[in-house]
Amino acid sequence: MSTTNWMETDEVGLKLALEQAHKSYNEGGIPIGCSIVASDGTVLGVGHNERIQKSSATLHGEISALENAGRLKAQVYRDATIYTTLSPCLMCTGAILLYKIPRVVIGENSTFLGGEDLLASHHVQVVVIDDPECKELMNRFIREKPKDWNEDIGEE
Amino acid sequence: MSTTNWMETDEVGLKLALEQAHKSYNEGGIPIGCSIVASDGTVLGVGHNERIQKSSATLHGEISALENAGRLKAQVYRDATIYTTLSPCLMCTGAILLYKIPRVVIGENSTFLGGEDLLASHHVQVVVIDDPECKELMNRFIREKPKDWNEDIGEE
Repeated sequence: MSTTNWMETDEVGLKLALEQAHKSYNEGGIPIGCSIVASDGTVLGVGHNERIQKSSATLHGEISALENAGRLKAQVYRDATIYTTLSPCLMCTGAILLYKIPRVVIGENSTFLGGEDLLASHHVQVVVIDDPECKELMNRFIREKPKDWNEDIGEE
Repeated sequence: MSTTNWMETDEVGLKLALEQAHKSYNEGGIPIGCSIVASDGTVLGVGHNERIQKSSATLHGEISALENAGRLKAQVYRDATIYTTLSPCLMCTGAILLYKIPRVVIGENSTFLGGEDLLASHHVQVVVIDDPECKELMNRFIREKPKDWNEDIGEE
């Protein structure tokens, strides 16, 4: 795991993920967003947590972005980076491993720590940005709707 | 992991999962089915793979059953068994770990071997039935539509 290796081109990916997080928050939902971007900059999919909006138990930000990206060939995933505003839970970590996405950029992992170690043990490059905007948005939501948040991580 | 501890009451759970697998096959889809059942026998949700039917990259049998079960409280998952006709991939394994489902009954894991070791390392009880009907159905599909199957496990 690394907090360096943050590339300029990654700014677009995290910006898209953050836009999704804000969109979800503005809908009354859990503010976690995600984008999946190919190495040539092509945006393959974006999505955000849909627990509240769709009464969904599985549409976390990463699952939502993968779902919105549709059916892709294995080599497309293997050339992509997934950007998520928050550390991926074990379900989303498993999805990243299923499709062998080689690189994960995480906005922050101070409000929740997910599968970074599991990703690293499968040789996935993990970059943690520790982004203040991601943290502020997530902390605000946890203060406002702690029950929804705890339900989302299987704790309530 | 165990191939014993197969309880009579589990027959209902696996039967529901197999019904879902056959339903998917009859729709032209990947024949993997799943059910989630509480310890008192209440069926919480059923589902099947929807890759072909919904052009979905994430609706594996287990994810589909979790999604169909809707938003549940943590203690409900922690009292449940999840039945799946085929060994759960890493995404579905991660979903089981996210919600701390304590027991997984797997129809077969000879056509695909997923996250059994990861489940066991998190103290999830894993029971493998080695069911001939699950194997026959899956083998038939893999012979008929190998590309769809390989796409589903991130290999093509």
